Amino acid sequence: MAEAEHTAGRALANGKTRIDFQTAPARYRHWQLKVDGDVATLTMDVDEKGALFEGYELKLNSYDLGVDIELADALERLRFEHPQVRAVVLRSGKPRVFSAGANIRMLAGASHAHKVNLCKFTNETRNGIEDFSENSGVATICAINGTAAGGGYELALAADYIMLVDDGAAAVALPELPLLAVLPGTGGLTRVSDKRKVRRDHADVFCTTEEGVKGKRAVEWRLVDEVVPGSKFDETIVLRAREFAAKSTREAAAQGITLAPLARNFTADAVEYDFLAVEFDRAGRLATVALRGPPSQPPVSADAMLALGSEFWPLKLARELDDAILHIRLNELDVAAIIFKSSGDPAQVLAYDRFLDTNKAHWLAREIRLLWKRALKRIDLTSRSLVTLIEPGSCFAGTLAELLFASDRSYMLAATLASPASGGGVGRGGDNKPPANIALSDANFGAYPMPNGLTRLACRFLADPSDVNAAKAERGKMLDAETAEKLGLVTFALDDIDWDDEVRVFLEERASFSPDSLTGMEANLRFAGPETMESKIFARLTAWQNWIFQRPNAIGEEGALKRYGTGQKPVFDTRRV
Amino acid sequence: MAEAEHTAGRALANGKTRIDFQTAPARYRHWQLKVDGDVATLTMDVDEKGALFEGYELKLNSYDLGVDIELADALERLRFEHPQVRAVVLRSGKPRVFSAGANIRMLAGASHAHKVNLCKFTNETRNGIEDFSENSGVATICAINGTAAGGGYELALAADYIMLVDDGAAAVALPELPLLAVLPGTGGLTRVSDKRKVRRDHADVFCTTEEGVKGKRAVEWRLVDEVVPGSKFDETIVLRAREFAAKSTREAAAQGITLAPLARNFTADAVEYDFLAVEFDRAGRLATVALRGPPSQPPVSADAMLALGSEFWPLKLARELDDAILHIRLNELDVAAIIFKSSGDPAQVLAYDRFLDTNKAHWLAREIRLLWKRALKRIDLTSRSLVTLIEPGSCFAGTLAELLFASDRSYMLAATLASPASGGGVGRGGDNKPPANIALSDANFGAYPMPNGLTRLACRFLADPSDVNAAKAERGKMLDAETAEKLGLVTFALDDIDWDDEVRVFLEERASFSPDSLTGMEANLRFAGPETMESKIFARLTAWQNWIFQRPNAIGEEGALKRYGTGQKPVFDTRRV
Repeated sequence: MAEAEHTAGRALANGKTRIDFQTAPARYRHWQLKVDGDVATLTMDVDEKGALFEGYELKLNSYDLGVDIELADALERLRFEHPQVRAVVLRSGKPRVFSAGANIRMLAGASHAHKVNLCKFTNETRNGIEDFSENSGVATICAINGTAAGGGYELALAADYIMLVDDGAAAVALPELPLLAVLPGTGGLTRVSDKRKVRRDHADVFCTTEEGVKGKRAVEWRLVDEVVPGSKFDETIVLRAREFAAKSTREAAAQGITLAPLARNFTADAVEYDFLAVEFDRAGRLATVALRGPPSQPPVSADAMLALGSEFWPLKLARELDDAILHIRLNELDVAAIIFKSSGDPAQVLAYDRFLDTNKAHWLAREIRLLWKRALKRIDLTSRSLVTLIEPGSCFAGTLAELLFASDRSYMLAATLASPASGGGVGRGGDNKPPANIALSDANFGAYPMPNGLTRLACRFLADPSDVNAAKAERGKMLDAETAEKLGLVTFALDDIDWDDEVRVFLEERASFSPDSLTGMEANLRFAGPETMESKIFARLTAWQNWIFQRPNAIGEEGALKRYGTGQKPVFDTRRV
Repeated sequence: MAEAEHTAGRALANGKTRIDFQTAPARYRHWQLKVDGDVATLTMDVDEKGALFEGYELKLNSYDLGVDIELADALERLRFEHPQVRAVVLRSGKPRVFSAGANIRMLAGASHAHKVNLCKFTNETRNGIEDFSENSGVATICAINGTAAGGGYELALAADYIMLVDDGAAAVALPELPLLAVLPGTGGLTRVSDKRKVRRDHADVFCTTEEGVKGKRAVEWRLVDEVVPGSKFDETIVLRAREFAAKSTREAAAQGITLAPLARNFTADAVEYDFLAVEFDRAGRLATVALRGPPSQPPVSADAMLALGSEFWPLKLARELDDAILHIRLNELDVAAIIFKSSGDPAQVLAYDRFLDTNKAHWLAREIRLLWKRALKRIDLTSRSLVTLIEPGSCFAGTLAELLFASDRSYMLAATLASPASGGGVGRGGDNKPPANIALSDANFGAYPMPNGLTRLACRFLADPSDVNAAKAERGKMLDAETAEKLGLVTFALDDIDWDDEVRVFLEERASFSPDSLTGMEANLRFAGPETMESKIFARLTAWQNWIFQRPNAIGEEGALKRYGTGQKPVFDTRRV
């Protein structure tokens, strides 16, 4: 990969060599975050010249990944820095336009992998808006002052309440199909059918009408909740925000913490964080994510946790893990498999789980759990083979044990007869690490549902729910490899003699397979059981969109994405598949 | 399209110019159907020289669409001609091999559209096997005497009970990923995870192990239900078949009917059946499917229905409709939209619905309803825009009204003020047809669930279930355009003045859009609400498989499908998406 040309298929702007998911309000170029009492306003005012890549301008509040990274950051700030906020207003800073959606020239020039990963990230951000409402009690009101087209309307669809100005011009639209021959793939179709529950034939008309729907019909067809005359728009926004804030369950008096910038050190083949390190084996196409257990006991009280702020181990580790996964997803496309390892004291991890559980009514403990939930879901949805290696000295307990269950496979090193059974001398190479153990906590049985709504253990043991209960009975105990295997918690328990070969063969095999078929297989096998709106977005909708993103009718030289804006009509292969 | 080259991308064998879905046991080349008392045996013994297309041989019980058409026919015969059958044994006629799955050379040479439609049809056939068990009480036992690989094992997965011979060699395998860089896309991944409920990490190992799994591990991992020593294989099959037959709820004494060959007349731009006609507008890329209502009153009794046999109107029409849809799907790829029209007396259609309802305990009435259910599901899953035009003289009532709700849109012609309101003179062009009415029956409220398990009306009115009740209250009444629109049953009620232009513009627009994005949009908007295993197969699994079927790693010159059997290894683009 040439330094100048990013994996996205074109050069990053301003000479950058990687996409950075870390930002802060003072550095935003596209959003303003204003907090006024218990109501926050997120204003989208995209800087045309602030594109992530070279070669296009972000006109009409259109967006690229860089714009959405700021939105995602702003939402994290609202969760952690402004816990007194009880309602969010989402609006545009530009006159007569809300948002034109994903930038078309950006899409037309982006690699397939970048398009897919951009959509995945924006989907996750929008799901996060809904999670903020459902689980933190902070509803979002979207105030549409003009055209909300494509991804612009899809952003609105993530809100709890959509207001549209009634000025004879403002409209909501999903023009992707008639205009670009692709789908409203950032949740649009699914939220129209499953969240807004728009009647299917109305949805058909809406999604094929380039100019969209406005005024009374937009309400009748359930596309928006309210149309408001322009003269009353601002005062109605305030009114609705107050109504939603009044209904919020969030504590009004909470004091926030500051999310300090993550300390990171990027080198050629590694990224070093405080509690986590990523190492790349370029030849083997592997990334090893090594997590470090707690450096000390949990704090003595919720106040002590607050005082630690973003230094608090579970919070910092979750932020680092999330950043590392996003970095691999968007900047390290050649990685075939992610290997999770850990080091530390499993008993300490369990102690932190107990601490969070004891303080679960506290807003900060709750937000930390929700952050872990979202970070783990992001791992579920990461299109790389996932494997956890459980070695001596590791600490896959409680919350960290979720990585085992999120993995496609896990390998656990068993203490062998040849190893001394007592003391700390068991393990590979005769070092002093304690033998490999895993442990479960209450957190494994409800705190972290997958996108399909099941806990990872319930999904794993779909065949026989009594296996979940058998695992539950062992909470808090240190489980050695034999026990873990018997309980079905690990894939393979191996002894010292087999370990190196088995793991090596597996990793080599994984790197030898077609990356696409692995993506498809993992997307199917990881999500047994029910589907939710969220999982439907990533399965049904995303899979179809990815298919269309490969089809010549969209991306070919005569396709709609390439021809858009050239004055030439696209030419389609008319055969239906 | 050249006559010699079929839309599948290669020439049909034996100089044929279209794929024919009609066959009969006497003409089978690949299957034997043997009925012995209440147990039927379906033996797969594929004729190597009997491929549907030129250019490959069907070795090792591998299959192409032609093989599966025979299987689908055999299952229909079991339903209608052998109602005394209470269990089915599925086995191989070849020694030491059950089935090698879909023929790889066929896949490598097939067009994208053919691959996708082949998988869709085979999925429907396998879903039909499960429906036969669930709703007709006829379980299938699959007896695997050797290798069951890929589509071979996927066929086994459709059975209720899988037996594997324990001879040290016989194995079940899904080698698609390691061997061909595609997915087990005929339900395989979904049935492994959601039906067999194989633990996710075991499934990961299984689906990446070319040689598959055999013996005890196959049982432990839930891949098969039983392994049986070769010496006891045959007697155990008989035993299991008797056990399942004994549990069946199907009447033991029923006498079957004969499914007579459908009378069809193919001309250049039309297909004429007895109760149905298809007309092609090549320039407009339209197919009009015109259904004819009952030619007479329903029979006076169930015995009279039996005596009519396959001439009985609802049965014959369902078979014709199913055949017509399959013909369009596989042979008429350029058709953008299917237009449903009808002619006849809606009151008569309601009378037939009442007759079937009154006799619903009769096996034949039940099987006819189940056939309509499957035919309507096939329409739901047909990747063409669907529209129903409700004109004067039409008979979209009860069962036939389901076509309205299966359509992406419907247009209904309203009697205008300018038209005489009384007598038979209302309608377009002043002819003598009665004004357009639709009507509902009990059948619209439960008999025909969609693949997602909802009735079409429940899915349509997801936002407000009371709309379903409002429609239910109008059962049996003739509903004019205004009433139908008010009840939300039609998309647009138009008067004479607007009709021609509105319909024309819609159809032209539909033909102008990218076929791929229409496929993706319709696949999302048609299935609001829950997902079932069946709908997951067509959404999550199929959509990913279709994506992979477009990726160079599978179908490129250096891809796995193209390189298979050449001795050259495939070369993959290693970037994960």
